[in-house]
Amino acid sequence: MAKRADISVRFGQRVRKLRKEQGYSQENFAYACELDRTYMGGIERGERNPTLRKIEQIADTLGISLAELMQGI
Amino acid sequence: MAKRADISVRFGQRVRKLRKEQGYSQENFAYACELDRTYMGGIERGERNPTLRKIEQIADTLGISLAELMQGI
Repeated sequence: MAKRADISVRFGQRVRKLRKEQGYSQENFAYACELDRTYMGGIERGERNPTLRKIEQIADTLGISLAELMQGI
Repeated sequence: MAKRADISVRFGQRVRKLRKEQGYSQENFAYACELDRTYMGGIERGERNPTLRKIEQIADTLGISLAELMQGI
């Protein structure tokens, strides 16, 4: 079985998918999350290991629970 | 409406509940997660802001998904 992708990569893909579904540009989404635009890019590319608080800021901006944000990853 | 508790507090309570349900002492659970015992105590007390990778180590040790770990918090 192939090794599953790193958690940061899987999380970043999930954030990007949900962000696009809600029609945000990456820049506008970063602004809404009160996170730096370059930091948000790093999250979506799986280059960051975000903390629980930052994960919550993302879930809150998307208007979903932490469990929903983590669904399938 | 009362302000909901800080995410770190809610996460710590969830971890403690699941850890106890699986019959782990805090020390044995920290060991299984490959996290320092005092760090795990800090997580359960809501004093820590764990990263995604550490959250994954906890979910893996409990044998549940990240979504299940985050359920209800």
